[in-house]
Amino acid sequence: MALTVNPYEHGLDKRPANFVPLSPIGFLERSAMVYPDKTAVVHGDRRYTYAELYARCRRLAGALAGRGVGSGDTVSLMAPNVPEMLEAHFGVPMSGAVLNALNYRLDADTIRFILGHAGTKVLITDREFSPVVARALDGMESPPLVIDIDDPMCESAGERLGEKDYEPFIGEGSSEFEYRLPDDEWQAISLGYTSGTTGDPKGVVCHHRGAYLNAIGQMLAFGIGARSRYLWTLPMFHCNGWTYTWGVTAAGGTHVCLRAADPALIFPLIEEHGVTHMCGAPIVLNLLVHAPESVKRRFGHVVEVATGGAAPPSAVIEAMSEMGFNVTHLYGLTETYGPATVCAWQEAWDALDMQERAARMARQGVHYHTMHAMMVADAQTMAETPRDGETLGELMLRGNTVMRGYLKNPRATEEAFRGGWFHTGDLAVRHPDGYVEVKDRVKDIIISGGENVSSLEVEECLFRHPKIMEAAVVACPDEHWGETVCAFVTPREGAGDLTEEEVMAWCRERIARYKTPRTVVFGPLPKTSTGKVQKFTLRERAKVL
Amino acid sequence: MALTVNPYEHGLDKRPANFVPLSPIGFLERSAMVYPDKTAVVHGDRRYTYAELYARCRRLAGALAGRGVGSGDTVSLMAPNVPEMLEAHFGVPMSGAVLNALNYRLDADTIRFILGHAGTKVLITDREFSPVVARALDGMESPPLVIDIDDPMCESAGERLGEKDYEPFIGEGSSEFEYRLPDDEWQAISLGYTSGTTGDPKGVVCHHRGAYLNAIGQMLAFGIGARSRYLWTLPMFHCNGWTYTWGVTAAGGTHVCLRAADPALIFPLIEEHGVTHMCGAPIVLNLLVHAPESVKRRFGHVVEVATGGAAPPSAVIEAMSEMGFNVTHLYGLTETYGPATVCAWQEAWDALDMQERAARMARQGVHYHTMHAMMVADAQTMAETPRDGETLGELMLRGNTVMRGYLKNPRATEEAFRGGWFHTGDLAVRHPDGYVEVKDRVKDIIISGGENVSSLEVEECLFRHPKIMEAAVVACPDEHWGETVCAFVTPREGAGDLTEEEVMAWCRERIARYKTPRTVVFGPLPKTSTGKVQKFTLRERAKVL
Repeated sequence: MALTVNPYEHGLDKRPANFVPLSPIGFLERSAMVYPDKTAVVHGDRRYTYAELYARCRRLAGALAGRGVGSGDTVSLMAPNVPEMLEAHFGVPMSGAVLNALNYRLDADTIRFILGHAGTKVLITDREFSPVVARALDGMESPPLVIDIDDPMCESAGERLGEKDYEPFIGEGSSEFEYRLPDDEWQAISLGYTSGTTGDPKGVVCHHRGAYLNAIGQMLAFGIGARSRYLWTLPMFHCNGWTYTWGVTAAGGTHVCLRAADPALIFPLIEEHGVTHMCGAPIVLNLLVHAPESVKRRFGHVVEVATGGAAPPSAVIEAMSEMGFNVTHLYGLTETYGPATVCAWQEAWDALDMQERAARMARQGVHYHTMHAMMVADAQTMAETPRDGETLGELMLRGNTVMRGYLKNPRATEEAFRGGWFHTGDLAVRHPDGYVEVKDRVKDIIISGGENVSSLEVEECLFRHPKIMEAAVVACPDEHWGETVCAFVTPREGAGDLTEEEVMAWCRERIARYKTPRTVVFGPLPKTSTGKVQKFTLRERAKVL
Repeated sequence: MALTVNPYEHGLDKRPANFVPLSPIGFLERSAMVYPDKTAVVHGDRRYTYAELYARCRRLAGALAGRGVGSGDTVSLMAPNVPEMLEAHFGVPMSGAVLNALNYRLDADTIRFILGHAGTKVLITDREFSPVVARALDGMESPPLVIDIDDPMCESAGERLGEKDYEPFIGEGSSEFEYRLPDDEWQAISLGYTSGTTGDPKGVVCHHRGAYLNAIGQMLAFGIGARSRYLWTLPMFHCNGWTYTWGVTAAGGTHVCLRAADPALIFPLIEEHGVTHMCGAPIVLNLLVHAPESVKRRFGHVVEVATGGAAPPSAVIEAMSEMGFNVTHLYGLTETYGPATVCAWQEAWDALDMQERAARMARQGVHYHTMHAMMVADAQTMAETPRDGETLGELMLRGNTVMRGYLKNPRATEEAFRGGWFHTGDLAVRHPDGYVEVKDRVKDIIISGGENVSSLEVEECLFRHPKIMEAAVVACPDEHWGETVCAFVTPREGAGDLTEEEVMAWCRERIARYKTPRTVVFGPLPKTSTGKVQKFTLRERAKVL
């Protein structure tokens, strides 16, 4: 028998000319070449062109390298959406190190835990957070080098904590610093801690390949291009700003920075800078919708808004549309570099009325071009559920934009990846058209009389009530039914009185009886540091009602 | 000294959940899920939805696998832009084999050479090309399995040559065929032969990773989205249709097939199907501009046209704009999966007049997001040339969308990759704004009295003459000057007489004296099978003038 040889596998190996590790770092180099004089960053009175942004990032990388920071090291940032935070997304990986953007709403103990767990070598911190950072650093065995960001836009009186300010620090590096791409695109680029509701935060490790691909995925899903003006209503510490830090830079768009998602700032910034795109959790949309009329403005153009984290209530989508915003619904987690699915628009929906459109858009949709696959399946058997829009299963994802795993936490890593898929922890149905709809977190589902009740469905119903600003629904233990539905409701200010009976009657008319809340509690909702409702707190409260 | 361990390199290895080989195959699976009922392909009266296209591609893959075709095997296609050609772009790699799309303008000897060199196992061929294919197959020692495409739109009387027609052949495979992604994204996906002007054609080997990335690069560079209607004016055999075969499919757009780039077909198809995007060599634009008025139509929307291969003369860009087309200038080679640079639009150009805009747009521009880098350099020393818009050097590219190399041709492969860059063979300048402008093929430059004369610059000048349809310029040996400029000109039909002196006077007013043609020859231009002017033929003619 003749030896068969595959001719495609001879003399056609990888070389520098045809194989380059995928990394989002290269996007900045390209934009600095294509759009050197274009405004890359706006922050208050500050403006940086792409040439300047590139030079500043190289300075940061050079300064870090000069301090001995490199491969395998962690650089943490405690900052709002300021230019320094954006620069860190390039400068830190240019030095070979890993970027750890901290959730600035966390308490000192958690920050201290993270800095220790991440092995932070350098901490770059904004004065606004000096009080909590000072407490976090206090008593650390081997504290990091601390560098202060002294932003003129910072209104707090927080003192400087570090050895140097950011500007003189990056002055230690050269604008011509010769950074290298990672040797391997699988190398870590960022470390983001999930704000777990129980236990210590887990450190999600992302790599260059995934960051490159997800940044491109965002460009495609959200239509980011060279003429985009992106307003930073989403915290950059959230999954690296859902990778728009890299994606908007890749497009050569303009980053409009923003320290706080305040509607009184957002509306004028949109107007002043012709903002075309922005992102945020549904709470940000809610803030815009419920902003005082004196603050609101009408624009001459449509503003694209991407939201995710939870399904935006259709009432919010409708209200946003009426205000001139076009809402796109994305879904993802820190473990998937931010958004990984999009409720891709179908042309047939053009003809639907607003409420029907909003119902379609509230679904999490389909996986990104740059994600590989999704399925809804039984978490134990890994059997896919029928695409009937009814059968609940766990939403699972697979692809290059799924994290490497949790840092120094092999047990959690194995658990998240069991069966060859990433387990999102979200319960979803798959509709006959293939779109997924998340019904609840695995742990938030309510089982009443043996029937699954989606807390999201009940919340969606509550959100449509004109007198309700916010609502959250949890299970209340019940001897007879096992669990019943308990609603926590924040009435809208100035909308008049709202009674428990009124809320129940509203629900009874719109959803199944067993889904209707048996208890309604009025008041503000407890939130996590990332703005998510603390359902575990509500569950504790519901137990003693 | 303590052992330092990089915590990011422990327990965070690749797994099925977070590492998937990059391949454009997955784009079809995604579009079939997201847009199952949307029209994916239009060809005459035929329509295929995305669900149908996906099923047909899987049938083709299954049929090939059933015949023992798989990894390391080559499947060749000899077909115009028909649905079967598009299907082969997915079905062939789904079987594990490599797709070899043949240039249907080649002669029988060259086809025979390619089939032998590629080791073709299966040849799928359209009846239109039966005469040449029959001659090519005649006398082959081990001819491939031949499958006929019997397209009702085929107007030629070509007979069937093969064992089976395409439809019954794919009927051998299952629409549920379980294809696998490549084990390694570096695996070959396609083999394209360059139509060299001397010597045997070289087989360019492209891989799944590059095809995936370049398809995304095209979507970003040319703005392809789900609402795109792409008209196939560019042959799919040209670098796999510049990877728009995969890119338009990824977007979930609609492919409008077309057997021949005939303006009498193009204008009505644009109107009927609301075509948004199309591509072609400048000759296609020329055909549209010079089409009879009876054929031309005005559309209610702008049609995006990407062109490349040579710089589009600014007169053509202007004329296209006036007809409602928006021209984007791309540049690339078979070795770079088609376009790899784009003349990215700068907002400042909005304010320029049409002629200034056209001059900017005639440049090849900047590398794609998905290419890594470009430079203009001395081919021997590899030293980069100054960015002065004047100094000639060879354009070189580096990135993941550069071929693996030439099949079974290590010498040509080494030559193309010397110094760690891919050598395009094009002479270019780099402008102060970083944009490249190709001045000539390395071998087409004219050196007159020690001065470089760009044949493209002279051709650009000639193209602007209202009585000139086409022009090509080559060197004529000259005892005194070394070389002088010789122009071959095709006058525009019905535009009236044109004299040699008139042409020379036109040039003298517009370009330097030493660049002005010393000789002008009138007549049709000889073309290669891909529509490029055969300059080597013209050079031979110029020698004996």
